[in-house]
Amino acid sequence: MKYLYIVGALGSIGMQTLDIVRNNPYEFKVVGLSVGRNIELAKKIIEEFKPEIVAYRTNEKLELSYKPIEYYGDEGLLEVSKYSKYDNEVFVNALVGISGLLPTVEAIKSRKTICLANKETLVVAGDIIKSMVKEYNVPLIPIDSEHSAILQCLQGEKHDEVKRLIITASGGSFRDRTRAELVGVTKDDALKHPNWKMGSKITIDSASMMNKGFEVIEAHYLFDMPYEKIDTILHRESLVHSMVEYNDGSIKAHLGVSDMHNPISYALRYPSHEKIEIDRLNLFGLNLHFEELSKDRYPCLEFAYMAAKKGGIYYAVLNASNEAAVSLFLNDKIEFLDIEKIIYEEITKDEYSKIEYNLDNVIKTSYEIINKIVKKYGD
Amino acid sequence: MKYLYIVGALGSIGMQTLDIVRNNPYEFKVVGLSVGRNIELAKKIIEEFKPEIVAYRTNEKLELSYKPIEYYGDEGLLEVSKYSKYDNEVFVNALVGISGLLPTVEAIKSRKTICLANKETLVVAGDIIKSMVKEYNVPLIPIDSEHSAILQCLQGEKHDEVKRLIITASGGSFRDRTRAELVGVTKDDALKHPNWKMGSKITIDSASMMNKGFEVIEAHYLFDMPYEKIDTILHRESLVHSMVEYNDGSIKAHLGVSDMHNPISYALRYPSHEKIEIDRLNLFGLNLHFEELSKDRYPCLEFAYMAAKKGGIYYAVLNASNEAAVSLFLNDKIEFLDIEKIIYEEITKDEYSKIEYNLDNVIKTSYEIINKIVKKYGD
Repeated sequence: MKYLYIVGALGSIGMQTLDIVRNNPYEFKVVGLSVGRNIELAKKIIEEFKPEIVAYRTNEKLELSYKPIEYYGDEGLLEVSKYSKYDNEVFVNALVGISGLLPTVEAIKSRKTICLANKETLVVAGDIIKSMVKEYNVPLIPIDSEHSAILQCLQGEKHDEVKRLIITASGGSFRDRTRAELVGVTKDDALKHPNWKMGSKITIDSASMMNKGFEVIEAHYLFDMPYEKIDTILHRESLVHSMVEYNDGSIKAHLGVSDMHNPISYALRYPSHEKIEIDRLNLFGLNLHFEELSKDRYPCLEFAYMAAKKGGIYYAVLNASNEAAVSLFLNDKIEFLDIEKIIYEEITKDEYSKIEYNLDNVIKTSYEIINKIVKKYGD
Repeated sequence: MKYLYIVGALGSIGMQTLDIVRNNPYEFKVVGLSVGRNIELAKKIIEEFKPEIVAYRTNEKLELSYKPIEYYGDEGLLEVSKYSKYDNEVFVNALVGISGLLPTVEAIKSRKTICLANKETLVVAGDIIKSMVKEYNVPLIPIDSEHSAILQCLQGEKHDEVKRLIITASGGSFRDRTRAELVGVTKDDALKHPNWKMGSKITIDSASMMNKGFEVIEAHYLFDMPYEKIDTILHRESLVHSMVEYNDGSIKAHLGVSDMHNPISYALRYPSHEKIEIDRLNLFGLNLHFEELSKDRYPCLEFAYMAAKKGGIYYAVLNASNEAAVSLFLNDKIEFLDIEKIIYEEITKDEYSKIEYNLDNVIKTSYEIINKIVKKYGD
């Protein structure tokens, strides 16, 4: 039996994780949950899975049929992440944004296996997290479809025989528009992702290709690969989820339907391909395209490499400026193309190089940048 | 250092194996060779690699600068296969046809690692060979691009989590013709393979799709997979060399340029992807197609499953009738479509079921069928 903690349980990844638990009751037991603002859904999920400990985002009290340990507000998130009672504990971080960082830190300290859907954890604090998972000797497994694909393609292979990782990108909701055609695009346009149903933040990041930039950074830390060995490629069908090229010219690719149940199941059961209820990819009639991903068309991708080159606190600057800009765009405060302008402005500032790279400063600087940008453009 | 024995050294696979030896002199040393009718090339190769033992197909004596152990005719093939002096010996069987079977048997008995390009070994005597490699505890590694791809996709994975093997087929030189358009096709037409440069026997087998049928049988033995878990798919580009689907819906595919140096290197160095000099697959602009492979269009593929269902000596019947028919076609004695007629006639005969399945009978029956068919159509 694996004992599960899921933070961000009511989001897209959280709910799909719960599907797998629901279908495999002898394999998984939910111990801890954090739930968001949807109180009705929260009640339903809590009653179904009966976790021992729950963190609520809001202060609203639920009437439940049993008495779990309950926390309200940010503190609760850390309490759920810290809680530990069993041998075989797995922590699923399905939070969106920088708020996912400290829960990961607490879960590592309590020696849970980390299944990571929260991008920010590795994007802003990759070096810190990597040295922590080493110190506490806990597995760190990606839930992202791209990184899961790479992990699967690396299975049984030697690290030093890898020539490069090749991360596929659908191109996002604006892939058929030129840069000129991006002027004046709306939030609704941006939220129409061609292949994946995802949360709104990540769908915007996908349209701007910042998401792919984050994935490059995550891959760097997850697989201990230098940036020059991490490439991206445009693959419109989103059926090849990523690839690994080896020194002998062999390329291993991972294919499957666009369904996050696959990478979630692989993370929970790593390295096993145990059965899940999922549509099978029908290969007959398939036509898979691969194209170069232009850095001119998608400057946010280049910003990731730029921030990585500066290193340290600049990872947080990259992420925070993007987080603020996307939030402003989703609230109709700025144009789509302003997102990249705002990011570029921040990551090219020299002043951040003076800030020491540690967990406190990563978080402090992140919130300072978010607040500053939101204040500047938000009125 | 690995000590190599290569039978069929002057053929396409043999020569490419020697390329890898030539480029890695501190990794491989050639100990034994068998060479065919091209005496000039034989002399050049023997002088370059200076094997300790050589088997000549013909009786012509060569003047060499040193004195290897030399054998002439069929007996020599077995002597090279038997010869053993070193710890880390690797046997590359690059022979074409049923004559490749007994050399494999002798190499197993002398406990060499078996790298198998000879299809007939497993097609006609799969059960015997499998129990021998188990008894003598020797690795059996495929050199075929399809089986190498599958082996690579299975690396680090659990056998019981495999849903199915998916063998790709280019469709051969007649893939764009209907069955009606196959009437009267010539040997020259058939020998124009769209993607691969191979020997003439295998190019004809590729046009008839018998080759894919053989590969299904080989996959059954190589990977201990039941036939219902082995599928084929038409993939015109020959860049995805085969795939493995797992129980969770994950499909792993192996991609690369159409160059046999890759699977040969992987076999010699299994399971390592050490560097070789090979063109890299350029993914940009790639467009990969997959289609259903029609058993009506390619009856020879179905014949393989039919023979497998009958089992035992019928594997040899399938192979021998094909070997005879292809030879007749290459000698302009029969039409292309006669190949499948000849095979069908033999594998549907009940009389073979009386023959006990053992090594002697596999060989005896094979030659009887070949001689019978060649005699019947050869004049």
